[in-house]
Amino acid sequence: MKTQVAIVGGGPAGLLLSQLLHQRGIETVVLERKTKAYVLGRVRAGVLEQGLVKLMEEAGCAERMHAEGFAHDGTLISYGEEIFRIDFAELTGQPVMVYGQTEVTRDLYEAREKAGGKIEFEVEDVVIRGADSDKPMITYTVHGESREIACDFVAGCDGFHGVSRQTIPIDVRREYEKVYPFGWLGILSNTPPVNHELIYANSARGFALCSMRNDNLSRYYIQCSLSDHPEDWTDEAFWAELKRRIPSEQADKLIAGPSIEKSIAPLRSFVTEPMRWGRLFLCGDAAHIVPPTGAKGLNTAASDVHYLYHALCDFYEAGSEEGINSYSEKALKRVWKAERFSWWFSSLLHRYPDQSEFDLKMQISELEFLRSNKAAQQAMAENYVGLPY
Amino acid sequence: MKTQVAIVGGGPAGLLLSQLLHQRGIETVVLERKTKAYVLGRVRAGVLEQGLVKLMEEAGCAERMHAEGFAHDGTLISYGEEIFRIDFAELTGQPVMVYGQTEVTRDLYEAREKAGGKIEFEVEDVVIRGADSDKPMITYTVHGESREIACDFVAGCDGFHGVSRQTIPIDVRREYEKVYPFGWLGILSNTPPVNHELIYANSARGFALCSMRNDNLSRYYIQCSLSDHPEDWTDEAFWAELKRRIPSEQADKLIAGPSIEKSIAPLRSFVTEPMRWGRLFLCGDAAHIVPPTGAKGLNTAASDVHYLYHALCDFYEAGSEEGINSYSEKALKRVWKAERFSWWFSSLLHRYPDQSEFDLKMQISELEFLRSNKAAQQAMAENYVGLPY
Repeated sequence: MKTQVAIVGGGPAGLLLSQLLHQRGIETVVLERKTKAYVLGRVRAGVLEQGLVKLMEEAGCAERMHAEGFAHDGTLISYGEEIFRIDFAELTGQPVMVYGQTEVTRDLYEAREKAGGKIEFEVEDVVIRGADSDKPMITYTVHGESREIACDFVAGCDGFHGVSRQTIPIDVRREYEKVYPFGWLGILSNTPPVNHELIYANSARGFALCSMRNDNLSRYYIQCSLSDHPEDWTDEAFWAELKRRIPSEQADKLIAGPSIEKSIAPLRSFVTEPMRWGRLFLCGDAAHIVPPTGAKGLNTAASDVHYLYHALCDFYEAGSEEGINSYSEKALKRVWKAERFSWWFSSLLHRYPDQSEFDLKMQISELEFLRSNKAAQQAMAENYVGLPY
Repeated sequence: MKTQVAIVGGGPAGLLLSQLLHQRGIETVVLERKTKAYVLGRVRAGVLEQGLVKLMEEAGCAERMHAEGFAHDGTLISYGEEIFRIDFAELTGQPVMVYGQTEVTRDLYEAREKAGGKIEFEVEDVVIRGADSDKPMITYTVHGESREIACDFVAGCDGFHGVSRQTIPIDVRREYEKVYPFGWLGILSNTPPVNHELIYANSARGFALCSMRNDNLSRYYIQCSLSDHPEDWTDEAFWAELKRRIPSEQADKLIAGPSIEKSIAPLRSFVTEPMRWGRLFLCGDAAHIVPPTGAKGLNTAASDVHYLYHALCDFYEAGSEEGINSYSEKALKRVWKAERFSWWFSSLLHRYPDQSEFDLKMQISELEFLRSNKAAQQAMAENYVGLPY
């Protein structure tokens, strides 16, 4: 098989790139290790920056998002019984879009399928060959049958555990990592959200987040120990703990119900440099992970897709290699900004096992500064709605 | 002896309070453990917020400061070879005043002496008695002779090692502390400053600060090991190391010369709560210490003096105890903001022994964000020129 751009990974980054390139007449093949049902079953983030919203529009996949998604003009932050709002609309003129990553992925699959896009599922043994040559080649198997794709470029959109990053020789890569000493226990429940905007909560018992997908689908998280298992937490225990971590006024209004999903996610900051090796380009989680505080994971994948999409268009349409050559530098510049914000926002809101009394006071002082200082709110809001590409 | 307000400590905080109260006809006695020459020989910070400038004006001690001090409209921050400016004037409409703490103290002594203010030097064995009663009493000795002062109030302006804080029972006090794993090696030299504004430098070799007192008196600092001694560092070694820590353009312009003072200061964040116990009020270093990055030490002492001065005026002039009763809360609210800023600015600029490669990237990302984001600059500038009282 031959194609112009082989895309390893059929998550939202790979599909978005594929669909965007298709709109410009550039041919792709997407290789996905799992089934479509598995990919669509993953519950992930649900806050989209305007940059991603615009990319979805450009990809021709924004209709349902605009119909069913919710534009949020601000967010609430609480600490103990104190609560304040960051007004994104007033501070930046931009909202964020609350629309689940699962829905984004579903819309992209639909568009790819409608356009007859080539997606191979359940591929195994993927090997990216000759990425440092002019003629990269991907070999893989599907249900035991060996296949190969000759291509001009490879987009590595296969996540943290994928083969793409591993394809870059270890002596070329430089990796940066921070593993946080806690996890997030999250549940999804068919209950109305406690508040129409998100609440990020710092409490003496640890972080909590009240989020949502729609008017009757809530997503809640609490900071938990890394040694916890979801089955250790009954729904009752989860709701009781969540209520202890948000201000009483909100806790009193919170409507509990059976969980329809319950899982624990670890928190990690990770970046690999460079994000390009020859004709292989890393996108999204393949190159970087952020802790979920601030919802930058999917959004940062989208900014990579933006840079790579334009670089490939410039190559095929104008014969220019400028975008390709500067991809890693441009993408990383924005990645580090998102890493900084996610690290800062995580540091601001979680309890850490080694925090001294002084450290706790610094955390509260930073929250009070954010509550009272417009410039600090402005800097936070600009990051939250998304720094410019 | 009797007085209205007994002030323990004849540094700038005690003298400023004494002089301000004098202007309002409130009588004070200042007790100082050292000689005047010793106090005036201490080299300390030299960047004054407008709040302190205004207090000096109100105290009638601002003439020489306005004649000899330098209003700075901004500061430079460098990391590696990168350098950028924070424009205080544009961002906040306010400058800072570069004028040495030694000069502030000298001006205050002159004013107190001119007004016949009572200052006792070389006092020993100070004991504050009955601070929790209506009739506090201070006993002390001077050259072996026992003396005592009956007073209405005691202002504890005697620094971190003074008796005032220790007078508050340990079960009433709550203390917060962070000791930084490095020191500042500082020199004073009769050389023109390398730049007309301060340069705060983050470098792979550690922090450096280029500061000044006047056109021919420079004050430079480099981060050093806590195990270093000033005598380990020849002038030549100091200048060579300083030049390695600032951008080459500045290093090439730097004029070295013999040091006229050389010392190492440790860095500490410390706060005690509450700042009032009965009729004893803590002011300045007696209650809190900041690392010197950002020059908040003297300025935060000044904000305490501001609150206490107004509280005492309200008491004597209007018979109101409101200011006295809210002193600790008001002062601490601003103290924690200064603590937060000093901790943040220190964290941004120093090398820490336990920093991972990821942590270093976060530091550089934060510097790049500060360089490129106006809201971040605004928040920094508002803190640097001084948050409102």
